Amino acid sequence: MQIEAQIKEAFETLEKRIPLVHHITNYVTVNDCANVVLAIGASPIMADEEREMEEMVSLADALVLNIGTANERTIASMLKAGSVANAKNIPVVLDPVGVGATTFRRESTQKLLDKIAFSVIRGNMAEIKTLAGLEAKSSGVDSLEDESDGLCIAQGLAKKFNCVIAITGKEDIICNDTFCYTLHNGHEALKKVTGTGCMSSALIGAFLGATHKPLISAILGVLSISIAGEMADKNQRYRNISHVFNRCHKYA
Amino acid sequence: MQIEAQIKEAFETLEKRIPLVHHITNYVTVNDCANVVLAIGASPIMADEEREMEEMVSLADALVLNIGTANERTIASMLKAGSVANAKNIPVVLDPVGVGATTFRRESTQKLLDKIAFSVIRGNMAEIKTLAGLEAKSSGVDSLEDESDGLCIAQGLAKKFNCVIAITGKEDIICNDTFCYTLHNGHEALKKVTGTGCMSSALIGAFLGATHKPLISAILGVLSISIAGEMADKNQRYRNISHVFNRCHKYA
Amino acid sequence: MQIEAQIKEAFETLEKRIPLVHHITNYVTVNDCANVVLAIGASPIMADEEREMEEMVSLADALVLNIGTANERTIASMLKAGSVANAKNIPVVLDPVGVGATTFRRESTQKLLDKIAFSVIRGNMAEIKTLAGLEAKSSGVDSLEDESDGLCIAQGLAKKFNCVIAITGKEDIICNDTFCYTLHNGHEALKKVTGTGCMSSALIGAFLGATHKPLISAILGVLSISIAGEMADKNQRYRNISHVFNRCHKYA
Repeated sequence: MQIEAQIKEAFETLEKRIPLVHHITNYVTVNDCANVVLAIGASPIMADEEREMEEMVSLADALVLNIGTANERTIASMLKAGSVANAKNIPVVLDPVGVGATTFRRESTQKLLDKIAFSVIRGNMAEIKTLAGLEAKSSGVDSLEDESDGLCIAQGLAKKFNCVIAITGKEDIICNDTFCYTLHNGHEALKKVTGTGCMSSALIGAFLGATHKPLISAILGVLSISIAGEMADKNQRYRNISHVFNRCHKYA
Repeated sequence: MQIEAQIKEAFETLEKRIPLVHHITNYVTVNDCANVVLAIGASPIMADEEREMEEMVSLADALVLNIGTANERTIASMLKAGSVANAKNIPVVLDPVGVGATTFRRESTQKLLDKIAFSVIRGNMAEIKTLAGLEAKSSGVDSLEDESDGLCIAQGLAKKFNCVIAITGKEDIICNDTFCYTLHNGHEALKKVTGTGCMSSALIGAFLGATHKPLISAILGVLSISIAGEMADKNQRYRNISHVFNRCHKYA
Repeated sequence: MQIEAQIKEAFETLEKRIPLVHHITNYVTVNDCANVVLAIGASPIMADEEREMEEMVSLADALVLNIGTANERTIASMLKAGSVANAKNIPVVLDPVGVGATTFRRESTQKLLDKIAFSVIRGNMAEIKTLAGLEAKSSGVDSLEDESDGLCIAQGLAKKFNCVIAITGKEDIICNDTFCYTLHNGHEALKKVTGTGCMSSALIGAFLGATHKPLISAILGVLSISIAGEMADKNQRYRNISHVFNRCHKYA
């Protein structure tokens, strides 16, 4: 199927199914994540008590795990939630925020990767390089790396973890084991808003919950935020991210 | 007293007393809850460490308990806070977010209902039906139920728990053991913003802290958000929710 | 150096260094704190798991500790983070939100003051009076005190704790052991937005991370929020807090 047709189908499926997206995520950007998931036409829920993970995940159409402000308690909840999701064929997104910064983050992420099969992993270049075992110069949650070798890293990891890898930055790189896309949308000002990465991951969860198609979901999640940034810059009154739909045809 | 006079009095009392509203609430919508409480003219505080609940609640004029992202630790804090509030005659609001979704939420809410006397319980139709022991088809935190039997359920629960029950949705239903009101304000777009329910509960707390009158507080809390939605839709520059005051006369 | 030259130098240093500011802060205002730190040109990170504090703090240029929604777990993380920061000569800001409200807050703050050397402590009058051991009538997180004796209190505490004390309110008072500044910027409407105090503390952290100069950092952190409030009131399109720079010359 042509990419345009796949995009159209993904939005139509999203509109029909209104997928419930369960997040265990950080408390910095959680409100914006809930709001973008609503804006795209899905339904968000955030919950992190381990005792309710089995039932909560079972109600969901997709699960998003974001380690931004994770602690020992919430990592345990993520492990539980991910294993339930895998058992029930509910797709899971990983956002390994700042994974290179500390041993706790690296070890926690390693546990998540060992125990859970992810459909999509999205991060900036520094985070994805850390997953790839490379040295990455991390400056907190923002990446300072150049992106020349991104395609190679992304496709290598996609094969290793049998999932889609999305590296977001000035240029976005999205690969599965066979195909790679680079996207050149977005706007400089997106770097001045906290959580645009988290929001991309949340939106990938929304598309995944509707379609169960990792590659097109990753493309649309990333593209939605990028084009929202372009629209905001053009000073258009921005009411509903579904307006993005028509514009996606032009860019994808 | 006529409803118009009660509304006027409630806003005047709120302005005079500037009630302090203590919240143990979820981390998704907490910032918006603090901001609406400030906007209406009250003073918010959010705190959840069990060790400080006795003193913190004692300083407050009202307490709002919201289980949106509750965990075992914060449920314990809620139980403590509620019992202190009851002992000191400080009114308490319950927002049983997503109570039907998991056993943890149902059991935790049951404990809260067993140990604490609430002045107002506010939820969507699915949440209130769960409290009533009925089957409710819950889609995460949003309700998909029709509202035909809402009046009956609300008044039954109001009698059972000796409090005001507010069911919010396209039509809002607010009952105590004697009276029922239905409100038809609001705007479709409110469903596209996360936390409008939580914000209603927070505002009910603000009015309760000022007036100690559960019925008028529930009406005004719900109405403030509904009319704010209408005003936002009409593209009026929305600076201060107290502008809502004049319009309340027309609708209540 | 003249104050104008110091301001200019601070902004230039900030722009050059892009300091990483680590926050252990409350979940009410955390998103706005991250966004103002980005807006001023620094890089925020929020993390509170004790196990990662040593490494995370070591990456940072400044540390901001805010007790707004602290609990026993996060106070332990703050103590660890502060001691690491002190050992590595990374400046630390304390925001003792609502310290007078409960024994837990007073005792936790006392522990922080006993174990950590702070570069700047910022609070409202009630909070700073509590630190000074005076009775302060606290209304939640907002101060109701008059500010006549603020200069005396601020300078006394500055000497006692060997740091800069910033008292924010209608008039802002900023003292070290030798100098005192009073600032008369700001706008009434800032009281209607939750977290303007937290945001000031976060911005002080950003300037401190760049300059390691507590006095000018406290002045600029407080002034940035005050002038942002003035600009918002004047209905100027507010895109980037760095526009504040030019206006600082006029006011400082």
